[in-house]
Amino acid sequence: MRKAKISHNVILRLPRYLRYLEDLQSKGLVRISSGELGRLMGITASQIRQDLSCFGEFGQQGYGYNVEMLKKEVSEILGTNRERSAVVIGAGNLGRAIIGKFPFTDYGFRLTAAFDLAEHVVGQEIFGLKVHHVDALEEALKETPPDIAVLTMSPNSASSIAERLVNLGVRGIWNFTNIDIHIEKPCVIVENLHFSDSLLTLSYYMTRGANDPKDE
Amino acid sequence: MRKAKISHNVILRLPRYLRYLEDLQSKGLVRISSGELGRLMGITASQIRQDLSCFGEFGQQGYGYNVEMLKKEVSEILGTNRERSAVVIGAGNLGRAIIGKFPFTDYGFRLTAAFDLAEHVVGQEIFGLKVHHVDALEEALKETPPDIAVLTMSPNSASSIAERLVNLGVRGIWNFTNIDIHIEKPCVIVENLHFSDSLLTLSYYMTRGANDPKDE
Repeated sequence: MRKAKISHNVILRLPRYLRYLEDLQSKGLVRISSGELGRLMGITASQIRQDLSCFGEFGQQGYGYNVEMLKKEVSEILGTNRERSAVVIGAGNLGRAIIGKFPFTDYGFRLTAAFDLAEHVVGQEIFGLKVHHVDALEEALKETPPDIAVLTMSPNSASSIAERLVNLGVRGIWNFTNIDIHIEKPCVIVENLHFSDSLLTLSYYMTRGANDPKDE
Repeated sequence: MRKAKISHNVILRLPRYLRYLEDLQSKGLVRISSGELGRLMGITASQIRQDLSCFGEFGQQGYGYNVEMLKKEVSEILGTNRERSAVVIGAGNLGRAIIGKFPFTDYGFRLTAAFDLAEHVVGQEIFGLKVHHVDALEEALKETPPDIAVLTMSPNSASSIAERLVNLGVRGIWNFTNIDIHIEKPCVIVENLHFSDSLLTLSYYMTRGANDPKDE
């Protein structure tokens, strides 16, 4: 593996490569050229070769990529073979949607608990996952803190709960609360997923009339 | 407004500018320099000036930006002053979360209806929004099709429903179904929001140990 700093834009394309490779593999395809993969994804072959070259040598001149092997390599680059644990904070509609439908295990994550404030939710099981009170966060997690926490509760308590989680040893925050969370520790990664950014991107392209923005 | 093609990366930063400007305005700030805004957002002042220069001249040498005016301009560039209508397809947990919590009106969108397959949901009102059966999509929407449709149902019917919506005249698809939707019409914009891309980005940076990826 090379040590050079890899640009954030390359990283953002990796999950997309993974999705396309999974799809190709499920269709039984054994190998694919960078040209064919590029056509499917709406990017150039040279972009693909350049992106992947950041991580090593994967294809063979004149043969292309072995779909299964490349999928495995991209998947490992993304860390899905690390077997990480996750808790969900907020068992409202969004929390339930994510607990019930999001395929955590496909990406190497295992849900271990959920937390909520509402008395009528605490104690319930949601898709097999026990819901604890947020007040019991420290007690429940201090011995084996999860690798990541998924924040799906209301935004007003997001920052303080994120801080408590980080103090417990949580190293990753997947934040759906629509406010940016800043953690001043280099060992903690925060991924803020703002639904509004996505809707505004759609709105922009509808206003300006561009086609398929991702293909630029 | 300039006519040159604006890169997708610039567009992706605009909603983030808007969030920061809204926050600054709510704190009563009247003006800000590109240097200060850059420090807050973790990007360089020259990046900000360069991004905004794609759309016109906003700041004044030695004065900086008027927060309220710049917010209004960015907001208009993103099309939030267009008053668009939206329907939600899929009234499960994710659909409910979005109908109940997402501030559509802040971005110029008005929810007009929801649709679902499940008999026990059809006919209900969710946060004041009537749920129709998806079979009645054409009947309900043919006279005044909505500007956009938010897809929060299961992925297996996503492509066929997206096609029906486009045939009705829908010009924007906000797709949460975790499969890519491709529409071969230049006038239709699809925004695929893949939760998995976001989790995999978090996973990558946790594996590689980088700090605040967005600030690169």
